[in-house]
Amino acid sequence: MNPLSSPLLTDHYQLTMLESYLQQGMQETAVFELFFRKLPPTRNFLVAAGLEQALEFLENLRFSAEELAWLKPRLAPALVSYLELFRFTGDVHAMPEGTLFFPHEPILRITAPLPQAQFVESRLINLLHFETLIASKAARSVLVAPGKLLVDFGMRRAHGAEAALLAARASYLAGFSGTSTVLAAAIYGMPSFGTVAHSYIQAHADEAAAFEHLVRCHPENSTLLIDTYDTEAAATKVVTLARKLVRDGIEVSGVRLDSGDLGMHARRVRRILDEGGLEKTRIFASGNLNENRVHELISSGAPIDGFGLGTALDVSSDAPALDCVYKLQEYAGTARRKRSEGKATWPGRKQVYRKYDHSNGRMVRDVVALEKDDPQEGEPLIVPMMRSGRRISGINGKGKPEVIRQQALANYARLPESLRSLDAAPAYPVEISASLQALAKKVDDEASVITSAGQDRQAAT
Amino acid sequence: MNPLSSPLLTDHYQLTMLESYLQQGMQETAVFELFFRKLPPTRNFLVAAGLEQALEFLENLRFSAEELAWLKPRLAPALVSYLELFRFTGDVHAMPEGTLFFPHEPILRITAPLPQAQFVESRLINLLHFETLIASKAARSVLVAPGKLLVDFGMRRAHGAEAALLAARASYLAGFSGTSTVLAAAIYGMPSFGTVAHSYIQAHADEAAAFEHLVRCHPENSTLLIDTYDTEAAATKVVTLARKLVRDGIEVSGVRLDSGDLGMHARRVRRILDEGGLEKTRIFASGNLNENRVHELISSGAPIDGFGLGTALDVSSDAPALDCVYKLQEYAGTARRKRSEGKATWPGRKQVYRKYDHSNGRMVRDVVALEKDDPQEGEPLIVPMMRSGRRISGINGKGKPEVIRQQALANYARLPESLRSLDAAPAYPVEISASLQALAKKVDDEASVITSAGQDRQAAT
Repeated sequence: MNPLSSPLLTDHYQLTMLESYLQQGMQETAVFELFFRKLPPTRNFLVAAGLEQALEFLENLRFSAEELAWLKPRLAPALVSYLELFRFTGDVHAMPEGTLFFPHEPILRITAPLPQAQFVESRLINLLHFETLIASKAARSVLVAPGKLLVDFGMRRAHGAEAALLAARASYLAGFSGTSTVLAAAIYGMPSFGTVAHSYIQAHADEAAAFEHLVRCHPENSTLLIDTYDTEAAATKVVTLARKLVRDGIEVSGVRLDSGDLGMHARRVRRILDEGGLEKTRIFASGNLNENRVHELISSGAPIDGFGLGTALDVSSDAPALDCVYKLQEYAGTARRKRSEGKATWPGRKQVYRKYDHSNGRMVRDVVALEKDDPQEGEPLIVPMMRSGRRISGINGKGKPEVIRQQALANYARLPESLRSLDAAPAYPVEISASLQALAKKVDDEASVITSAGQDRQAAT
Repeated sequence: MNPLSSPLLTDHYQLTMLESYLQQGMQETAVFELFFRKLPPTRNFLVAAGLEQALEFLENLRFSAEELAWLKPRLAPALVSYLELFRFTGDVHAMPEGTLFFPHEPILRITAPLPQAQFVESRLINLLHFETLIASKAARSVLVAPGKLLVDFGMRRAHGAEAALLAARASYLAGFSGTSTVLAAAIYGMPSFGTVAHSYIQAHADEAAAFEHLVRCHPENSTLLIDTYDTEAAATKVVTLARKLVRDGIEVSGVRLDSGDLGMHARRVRRILDEGGLEKTRIFASGNLNENRVHELISSGAPIDGFGLGTALDVSSDAPALDCVYKLQEYAGTARRKRSEGKATWPGRKQVYRKYDHSNGRMVRDVVALEKDDPQEGEPLIVPMMRSGRRISGINGKGKPEVIRQQALANYARLPESLRSLDAAPAYPVEISASLQALAKKVDDEASVITSAGQDRQAAT
């Protein structure tokens, strides 16, 4: 069982529901939408990400012989037989990755026979929630650090293997320069970066010798870690080393600071390097950084050329989860609505329209409307991605990270200025169309009738 | 490339260092230790977890043909040849999973040739950090909810597939009853639990019909979700249904509340159920729960028999990362120490001794000491787990979740009372032995000598 593709990576209740649906013949078309209920105080917008992995999951969904063997003693025989042939045969509509979006706007719609549409819930949320979480976190650093090298350093404290990989991908989509995670470079074809660890310096009896060994081993590109013992003393050693290496035509490309007052050390190190003729040697900073620290350092004029963001990025430390849900909006042609306290949903198949200010190209407001017979001005954000279980070719299907990244950067340029800030901004206007509001009311009204009717029917059976 | 076992799931700098170490012939024995620097304000102790996955990683570490093919155009030929035969051949000493521990206490020690010991850093932290994070979070719920059913519901908002699986495992080790994640049950042999989703109720035109279908489909064990529309009205429907089902010998085993004021609804629903003769039907609660909410509900006397904890558990929402590091403590027989500002480490190979109050069996203090020639009273917590790359058989090697879980529960009983609280307690006393302090001083003193000597040597070359 491969945990990354196993259909058993799901909630127990999906199997419970599946069995009941099959027993009752409830296999008509269901429509589910995935959306986020609200923003954390430290997010002014979200960045859609994870669709590529979601589509891959749907396209390859099947139970292996091993999985079926494990299920056999646990499920009714009819259900096991059904699962042998289980495939996702439905349609997917979604916002392309890199789209900026807001609460109550669906970013993905599944239209499929009820058992399928229900069963895929857990893993779809698991993938889309996490990549969107990280892309949205990463976007904040990208917005405050234009022109800087931003590298994901978070693998070690990401929550497991897949989190490390997807965080590398999601932060890159959102505008980061690359990652330190080698496997992400191998799988997604994105750039990877690295220096050395403190242990490398410590393993050498002498810091200057460690520096020289590293640069001679990697003469084209090596970044020296200079904070293991005394940062400024180490910077002086770098200058001495560079004078020696110049005879061999080797340059020291960069130094990394990883502790202490990064702004102060950067200034002092910059001066030492410049006075030593190393104006081209770049300063890279890391060590418990997040977008706020990066913003402070840049605002204070610290001469830092690049930043490594680790834990705070990969676990989205200030908001490690978002209120992401996947809800039934229609079954067998009838709109449905959940009315639980504080958790009511908007029924039906929806589209999101975005209006722009034509004078400056900035977004001004969105309207969530019904997909059919509810025309609105603006750009429709939700497009077809998969038909009958197969990706629609050419439509952003094979999500190329580099292409999505360029789109995301273009999208940031269209954000209202207030939303680009790290500070909480007034909410971006998202309207619910009159037709959608009317449908919600209609569903509620019919529900009371149906509930009474249902009680009557039940009493009669 | 299988992301869960690929050696490319590592930081770029590991390959940079590896190449340099090989070039310089630096392959002598290195000792690294993994420890946590400090506790978040909402943790009084940590629960060691993840060793099983760490040992599995070390035992199976090798580069596949596909991985080598990807590396070939990117690395020096000598390094690629070396990686073809790369295996972990070192020793591992560690605290058994389920051990309670504190900052600056190593929970794992790697003793291996420097290139190996260094290379495994990223994934070891990635595994041990995350499982320890979740076990430590879960322990808090376990301590405040004795006798209650506690189920991990977090898969969908866990950070990817491996996080979902490991969170299920880690919370179970820490005393949870089970998980909703089917794959965790399949892989770890732990119990899984589930009810139905709101969409199941909504897909039916009538709530009472949905209830009846579910119970008839799963007569032995079904939990009805009763908050989709009106919780108390639904509870009344459950009573009506139960009266009907009793003729067929079917009982309704439980109901689930997932929204609103859970304590209030639980009281009202309990009364409705009891008055309807359903005293044995259990009430299960979920919906944005964490250990504080569980504690409040139990303290207020809410008649709830079990709790599903989702997002807050699986992302450890109040502390989504811990300050977990893996540091070089010795190389080629010489103790090493990092002295970076605010990040200094204790050098050498260490053991942790735990002293108990013999009158009540409670822990009273720990001493971090040198492994050799530094005898201390108390129980040594670090034991051999792997020798020359192979697990030591019989020593807690194949970490059986159920066995670890019992050990963890026994360990909680030995915690000082103050540490069992959800509130921040005064720090548990962890002493550094006199010999260890002396070694640290010795390393510092020698380092200044070596640094000057190194500068002289360098000037001479």
